[in-house]
This record gives sequence, C-alpha cells and structure tokens, in this order.
Amino acid sequence: MTLTLPAGESSSVLASSSGEPPSRSSGRPVTSSHRADITRWMAGLHDELTSFFGRLDRGGTFIEDRWERPGGGGGVARVMTDGVTFEKAGINRSAVMGTLPEAAARRLGGTGATQGSTMFFATGVSLVVHPRSPMVPTVHLNVRYFELTDEQGRVTDRWFGGGTDLTPFYPHEDDPRTFHQALARMCERHHPAFYADFKAWCDRYFVNTHRDNEARGCGGIFFDHLRPDDPTHGRDAEALQAFVSDVARVLRFAYEPIVERRRDEPFGEREREFQLVRRGRYVEFNLVHDRGTTFGLQTNARVESVLMSLPPLAMWQYAPRYAPGSFESRLMAMLAPRDWLSSS
Amino acid sequence: MTLTLPAGESSSVLASSSGEPPSRSSGRPVTSSHRADITRWMAGLHDELTSFFGRLDRGGTFIEDRWERPGGGGGVARVMTDGVTFEKAGINRSAVMGTLPEAAARRLGGTGATQGSTMFFATGVSLVVHPRSPMVPTVHLNVRYFELTDEQGRVTDRWFGGGTDLTPFYPHEDDPRTFHQALARMCERHHPAFYADFKAWCDRYFVNTHRDNEARGCGGIFFDHLRPDDPTHGRDAEALQAFVSDVARVLRFAYEPIVERRRDEPFGEREREFQLVRRGRYVEFNLVHDRGTTFGLQTNARVESVLMSLPPLAMWQYAPRYAPGSFESRLMAMLAPRDWLSSS
Repeated sequence: MTLTLPAGESSSVLASSSGEPPSRSSGRPVTSSHRADITRWMAGLHDELTSFFGRLDRGGTFIEDRWERPGGGGGVARVMTDGVTFEKAGINRSAVMGTLPEAAARRLGGTGATQGSTMFFATGVSLVVHPRSPMVPTVHLNVRYFELTDEQGRVTDRWFGGGTDLTPFYPHEDDPRTFHQALARMCERHHPAFYADFKAWCDRYFVNTHRDNEARGCGGIFFDHLRPDDPTHGRDAEALQAFVSDVARVLRFAYEPIVERRRDEPFGEREREFQLVRRGRYVEFNLVHDRGTTFGLQTNARVESVLMSLPPLAMWQYAPRYAPGSFESRLMAMLAPRDWLSSS
Repeated sequence: MTLTLPAGESSSVLASSSGEPPSRSSGRPVTSSHRADITRWMAGLHDELTSFFGRLDRGGTFIEDRWERPGGGGGVARVMTDGVTFEKAGINRSAVMGTLPEAAARRLGGTGATQGSTMFFATGVSLVVHPRSPMVPTVHLNVRYFELTDEQGRVTDRWFGGGTDLTPFYPHEDDPRTFHQALARMCERHHPAFYADFKAWCDRYFVNTHRDNEARGCGGIFFDHLRPDDPTHGRDAEALQAFVSDVARVLRFAYEPIVERRRDEPFGEREREFQLVRRGRYVEFNLVHDRGTTFGLQTNARVESVLMSLPPLAMWQYAPRYAPGSFESRLMAMLAPRDWLSSS
C-alpha cells in the first residue's frame, strides 16, 4: 500500500495511490511513509489548534516541551499558563508505537489477527482549556488514529476516535446550544447519523457514575473504533480522515462565539467558587473514569502530559446544597442530557 | 462464641467469655451482641477523635451527618469547615454488613470457607485533616475491623487493619521524626516487630506510582489482614484490639506536638502555593491508588463520605521545577523513605 500526501487542507494520507480506499482487511504491508504522513497530518492539526487558542486568548503564549517514549515515539506538549482568557490551556500531540501483548490489544478493541505479537501505532492530539472566568465554559477536544499490524507489518486493524465536549459553569443555555448546533452542522456534512450517534455516545461517556451519574458537562460528540467501511456508517478511510480533520477544526464555530460573548461578563466570588467546585468534578472524572488518563497512568506515559488536563485550581466542598432557582441549581439541571438542537 | 464487653478503656470485645482467645478457625456462630460491642468500640474511638481534633483546632466545630446504607448498616460523618487551625477536617465512622460474591470476598483477602455465599461485617473510623497553614502537616488515620461469616453465621475469617501517615508541606525534619518516634514507642508496647513491619508497609503503600514512585508524604504505619494468632505476629484478638485502640489514640503524642510548634510559624504566598500543589498529589493518590477510596467509588458507598478526604483546595502546575536548596526541593527530598528513628 503506497500512500500519497496531496497538498492543502483537504489532504488525505489514508487514500491509496491507486485511488482505491484501503480497508482494514486488505492486509497489505504498511509503509513507513504512510506513518510519516499520518504523523504530519496530526502535527498540522496540533499547530492549527495552537494558533487558534493563542489568538483566542488575546495575549498568552504557549511553552513547548518535546518528549520521547522509551518504547518508541514521543510527543509535543504545549501549555499556556500566562493566559489572559485561559488560566491554563494544554494542547498535546503524540505519535507512539511498539509491541502489544495480546490481552492489551484486545482491551484496545482490536479485532484483527492476534497470532503472534501485535504492533501498534497511535497518534493523536488532545486539548483541555480552563478559562479564568466562570462565565466561559471549559472545552476538551481529542482526535486520534490507531493502527495494529502483525509481525509481517500488515495492517490488521485501524480506526479513528475523538470528540469534543463543553463544560459550562454558569447556566447560559445559549452556550451548549451554540456548541451542539455547530457540531451537528459539521457532522451533517459527513454522515446523517454521525451527530446523533456520537452525541449519545458522549452523553454516556462523560459521566461521574460515583456521583449518581452526574454528567461532567453538557456533552458534545464522542466516537471510538470508527473503522474504514464499517457496516454501521460505511465511510472509507479518506472520508473518515476528512471528518476527523473537521472535528479538530470545529471549535472556531462551536466554541469561539461562546468565548467572545462571555469573556467580558462580570462575575463574583460565588461564581468563582462554584467554578472551582465543578472543576473538582472534572478532576474526579479524569482520574477515576477517563480511559485515556487511566491508560496513561497505568502504562507510565509521560505523567505531566497525561495530567495536563487537570485544572490549575480545584475545590472540594462537603455535600454542597444549592437553593432552588439559584444559578448553581440551574447549572446542575443543565447537565442532564437533552436535545440541544430543539428551539426551546 | 459469647463475647463480653468489660468496662473502661481497656475493654476488649473480642475476648471470649471463657478467657480463651477465639481463633479464626473456631467456626463458632457469632452473636449479634458481639457486633454491637465492636460497633460501640469503634463509635467510642470516633467520639474520642472528634473531641481531640475539636480541642486541637481551638475554635472550629464539627457538623454531623448520619447515613444508612441500602444493603445494611450506615455511618456517621463529621466535618469541620470553619476551623481555626484546620481548613477541613473529616472524621467518619461506619459499620456495614451484607452478602459478598465469592470473587469479592477473595479480593478482600478473605481466606475462609467460600462454599455458598459469604456475609461480611466491616466497621471502621477514618480521618483526614487539612490544616490551613502549610507549616502544619496533613495527617490521616484509619482503623478498621472486618469479619466474614458463612451461611450458618459462623466466623470464617476476621482481621484488623489501619494506620496513620503524615504529609508535611515544609521541610521541618523534626516533624516526621516526632511522628515516627511516637508511633515506634506505641507499637513497641504491643509487638517488637510491629513498628518496623508496618512502617515498611506504609512506605510501600502511599506511593504515586504514576509519578515515578513519589511518596505521598513521610509515611507512618500501615497494616491490613492482621488476624488473631497469625503465624507472623502471634497476637490474640484481645491484644490486637488493644493495639488498634492505641493506634486510634496515638495522635496526641504523634501529631499534637507538631501542630503546637508549627501553628504560629509565619509563611507566605509561595509556601501556600506549594501546599496546594502537594495537595494535588494527595488527590491523585486518593482517586487513582487508594484501595479504600476506589472500593468505595466502585461499590456506590456514600460518595460525600468516601471523598471527605479530598482537600478543600488543590492546585495543578505543569511540570514544576524547584531550585536546588529551595524549601520545595528539600521537602521533595524528605519524601524518600528513610529511618526516622535515627538521630541525624
């Protein structure tokens, strides 16, 4: 399988040079140029997202750390801690590879050949930004590509994953509405079922089950194991890559308008305190439930990159109670999954 | 097995009325009065610890919540949030019982009969206090008693567990020294190997393995599955209960002197910030590694009690670096396990 990298934003590194989309059962050996292309595509998305948040912040700068993984590969961590709008913004990319024990390959969801050892290649971009103002929601976005190969270097399975979700701290109903509408419009261009399927998946995933199933925020989209030509959605590799690129670029429509209309809204101590308590729930989800985080902690990935998603400051209050009708109660009510596309 | 409850602090509710210490293989049916006695013993330790911290704080008050567990039993949570010395102090007790699936019984460490269903009874007291001043260390203490019974109500296994550990935020070497010396003196009265064995166990347990094995603090003692007449230590039930009572009462010697000498020490923003960052590590340990916490979260225990150990405020900084010789560097160096009983 020879892969080409056409120039420009619409580039696809997964289309074969013959024009025929490679399927996961093709079993042709993967070339090193293919992985270089995929890695370059992710690095491009990483750079775009860094520029986007640098501009959106209006003054802060990112510092960059490059790290190598002993088992193979490495990553680039970019963090802003001097932001005007963002108290902390972290945008990571990584491209790692190595050998997987069979059980680990199965845990990852791989369904390809498991005779002999499985090699994996994974690359992705992940970001979480924590705004200073409780009027501005937190946003998380992640896109990733996984590939499993057998001992002969043949691709036995590969898939895309990713998503983005919004965590507001003040009950502005317009904000999740803007967010979900932009996601729905973007998804619609790729598949009529993507938004509904991935919105529901997101609602199921970002849940603090230990807090009586309290949602982390107002959802968004989440998808995993999205394989070329899968029977459910039937999109080829090139189409999936274009979708994932659009996910990585959706925040200019889904999040930027929210930041612009909230950044100058006044707030007080009580709003800030509630923001810190809600950030505590964010910490709980990431450390207790998030698969990416717990996988990273168990496999001795670079801990500062894995935990870059944690907020700069968080608060735990004992059994807080909120008066009916208070902004806190209204925010809590806003966390129950709902149809954010309906007009009311 | 009939159990008696002699009056006074030296009361033992585990000694049989015949004067013969019951062994875990005795298989005699447990009486309901035995469990009531054990529960009353724990409630007494809970009250003593509440009084102790109320006095040590010099002004704050505990609020109390009583809760019931749907499967059986319940608990009493006491929290101080208006403290003079303590920013948050939580002291819980619980006594819970129910049926365990075989696998869960094995996970708990039970070695008794597993034919048919296993019933469990567990009671304990647990506390964490987070001082306002970074000059004053955080302390945690826990004592617990577990009992497994078969379908006929015969005790098939039972054990004690517990411990206490100190988490300083400023490199006062005298503080862990005071703490460990008091623990060693207390342990010495019960068994010549208790301190050494349980100090080493503590050093192995409170470790953030995902942070390159960074210790949570300066240790203390930790023990679990301490069974009457076990071959290693050979102490009977009454002796073990007396030991556990002493663990619950050791803070007046191990912790109170530290609070008294540190509570008026001046500090600045930098010390406070470092305290908040170290508290972030405390959150990481409790949510990612602590067996009690993760067990509680997975079994839908009352979440506000399980997470009462979390600090009121915590901070995450990206990849902090500390200058050689700074107080932060010296504190980090103090976390490496060492012999705190030696003179230098």
